[in-house]
Amino acid sequence: MGVPSTALFTDHYELTMLQAALHAGTADRHAVFEVFTRRLPDGRRYGVVAGTGRVLDAVENFRFGEGELGFLRERGIVDEQTLDWLAGHRFSGDIWGYPEGEVYFPGSPILRVEGSFAECVLLETVILSILNHDSAIAAAASRMASAAGERPLIEMGARRTHELAAVAASRAAYVGGFATTSDLAAGFRYGIPTVGTSAHAFTLLHDSERDAFRAQVDSLGEGTTLLVDTYDVREAVRTAVEVAGPELGAVRIDSGDLLLVAHRVRKELDELGAEHTKIVVTSDLDEYAIASLRAAPVDAYGVGTQLVTGSGHPTCSMVYKLVARAESADPAEPLVPVAKKSVGGKSSIGGRKWAARRLDRDGVAEAEVVGTGPVPADLVDHQLLVRLAKGGEVVAREPLDAVRARHVAARDGLPLSATQLSRGEPVIPTEYV
Amino acid sequence: MGVPSTALFTDHYELTMLQAALHAGTADRHAVFEVFTRRLPDGRRYGVVAGTGRVLDAVENFRFGEGELGFLRERGIVDEQTLDWLAGHRFSGDIWGYPEGEVYFPGSPILRVEGSFAECVLLETVILSILNHDSAIAAAASRMASAAGERPLIEMGARRTHELAAVAASRAAYVGGFATTSDLAAGFRYGIPTVGTSAHAFTLLHDSERDAFRAQVDSLGEGTTLLVDTYDVREAVRTAVEVAGPELGAVRIDSGDLLLVAHRVRKELDELGAEHTKIVVTSDLDEYAIASLRAAPVDAYGVGTQLVTGSGHPTCSMVYKLVARAESADPAEPLVPVAKKSVGGKSSIGGRKWAARRLDRDGVAEAEVVGTGPVPADLVDHQLLVRLAKGGEVVAREPLDAVRARHVAARDGLPLSATQLSRGEPVIPTEYV
Repeated sequence: MGVPSTALFTDHYELTMLQAALHAGTADRHAVFEVFTRRLPDGRRYGVVAGTGRVLDAVENFRFGEGELGFLRERGIVDEQTLDWLAGHRFSGDIWGYPEGEVYFPGSPILRVEGSFAECVLLETVILSILNHDSAIAAAASRMASAAGERPLIEMGARRTHELAAVAASRAAYVGGFATTSDLAAGFRYGIPTVGTSAHAFTLLHDSERDAFRAQVDSLGEGTTLLVDTYDVREAVRTAVEVAGPELGAVRIDSGDLLLVAHRVRKELDELGAEHTKIVVTSDLDEYAIASLRAAPVDAYGVGTQLVTGSGHPTCSMVYKLVARAESADPAEPLVPVAKKSVGGKSSIGGRKWAARRLDRDGVAEAEVVGTGPVPADLVDHQLLVRLAKGGEVVAREPLDAVRARHVAARDGLPLSATQLSRGEPVIPTEYV
Repeated sequence: MGVPSTALFTDHYELTMLQAALHAGTADRHAVFEVFTRRLPDGRRYGVVAGTGRVLDAVENFRFGEGELGFLRERGIVDEQTLDWLAGHRFSGDIWGYPEGEVYFPGSPILRVEGSFAECVLLETVILSILNHDSAIAAAASRMASAAGERPLIEMGARRTHELAAVAASRAAYVGGFATTSDLAAGFRYGIPTVGTSAHAFTLLHDSERDAFRAQVDSLGEGTTLLVDTYDVREAVRTAVEVAGPELGAVRIDSGDLLLVAHRVRKELDELGAEHTKIVVTSDLDEYAIASLRAAPVDAYGVGTQLVTGSGHPTCSMVYKLVARAESADPAEPLVPVAKKSVGGKSSIGGRKWAARRLDRDGVAEAEVVGTGPVPADLVDHQLLVRLAKGGEVVAREPLDAVRARHVAARDGLPLSATQLSRGEPVIPTEYV
């Protein structure tokens, strides 16, 4: 599963900028880059920081080996001086950021990378790839988890997205509140619990539905989940309980009017004495469909397409911007705040930033405060950025369950309207000081 | 860049189905699975088959090594009999499919996998991941390429999607008609030409825009592309030509009203004697924005977010369905067509299918014809499926440029309205015989 080097997950222009800066003698200038977004996806109330752990892995594996250097040389992408610089390169700067699982808002400086211009600029593409993808999935997952309440969510979207994006999507879904995944690679790589039993093909393989159920129960036990919508649902439920007995683990419904069918199936199961047999529903669910099934007798939801495509927002609009730089490599030299200034949008605020979440008297978040000067005394203890890497060494690895728990706490700290599914403004404003 | 094994890009239930079928003695039944979609994304006129070459690579690398088997054992996902079966497993069946780059419509059997149930069912997830992702990107790319006409398109969306999805997206974009990519990993892995010069950070690093332009031109030559919208565009263009001379390769505009700004910049360049300096525009372009710039003096388009997210449709709805199976392992035994039949949608048509594109008297496509019986004589020479793997061996590898050329030819064979950007029905109907 390992990707040997992340160094080529990089846009061509990062390397040509490096070459030109090396020539000009500006490559070593001390620089501060920040990741932020100017807006949340349309109508969303909050964003979810996800992928930070993967970013740290990617930074550690950002090395130009012989294969990478040979490619750059053969294609004439950069000159020999630059290739020499790359050959010995490893990131030696500092990274601060919002801890993974935290929520964010427009302008939140969710990651800050500080070091020489050369080493920081090279990381732009891979950092944004990871954060833009993973945060988009986690945001959708978080909304679905809110809608599902105590009922568990199963991530099963691998087949709807790139095979490795799927693994990252499972991870982000887990951060956002999903309980399990169907994706074995996600179980292998990240330890996420995997689940699954059978598809329609399994029923169709056999001479009858009864044969298929018998085969499955004989091999996987009565606690298995039988798929009951290949032919007639009512008949399938009866056959399922006949074959597995009333201790049948669950039945899965994958088509039709789920609200209606779930009620019918529950009634039938109860009549057959299978009161403890659970009902799992799958079939193009999103957070709205999940919410609409709140009153239905459903025990678990399987979500695929809408999860891995971010429920309408498959990417975030995070950018990686140079916000300050010195005139030399000396980090003690005063930093010059910088920002694009042209008319027509995409402007940003220069300067290295801090961020804090201001709470009201009940301890509920009331504003995301972002500033470039000294931190006001009342916000010192509510700062959001933590140190993630120091002198190139990762200092803040953590287990995924801690990230998952942090997300629940962060979301619970927002005003209640954060979890409304309807479109609205960010649930707290961002204030600049 | 290599991924050692693709075997875990698999849903948990594929393996539990395998276990249950092994127990029941049905795992060896000869089986035919087909990949198709029931519908195109809303309003789209045609789909583009992309990812087939990656599917063949994935099938070849679908092996369970010690790491994979150890994981499955430790988690108790399948029993020892199944682990033994997996340890020696490699796909030994046949694959037929639409050649990559071909267009498709609802019901087109774009891939057919035939062998034992066991070996075919295991491939479901990874095959769908690849085809659903890559075809979604290629379809967006094809529309953008139609809109751009002769002007080249640059793929630069790596930062907006998962880092490895980005590499596949570059490949799919190239299939769909893009000329180049910013993604170095795509250049490395697939030989796609890479391009890029500089970002706003490079200008901001330097003490003045003039210093930045000088640094870039000194290092990269006068043929480089200077980014002119960090401060004032008019002044930047003047400075750019002063620094690089009238042989400056190009200027890039990344914000503002591109139509208006492109006209002004062209006028200014011409007045400065830089008549051959090109104009590259980037900034949230999609096929509609590209079309709207047709009358503007633009020489190339850089496309990011909308390309890698499929321009509103980041995935296809392709499914992998068992359509026929025998009652034994003998491929000579008659196949029984099978299909899900429950009320409420998701039904499909059983039986191993052929497909052909019927042409009118002018040679223009008029219908996608899909059937299960003998192929009508007039369609024999217009069949779409070709053999891709035989007895587990890939027999149809081809260079990406051939795929790219095939797509142009396939699209050119459709009625003219195929390339209208407005929403509509599939440009030709699918007929079942």
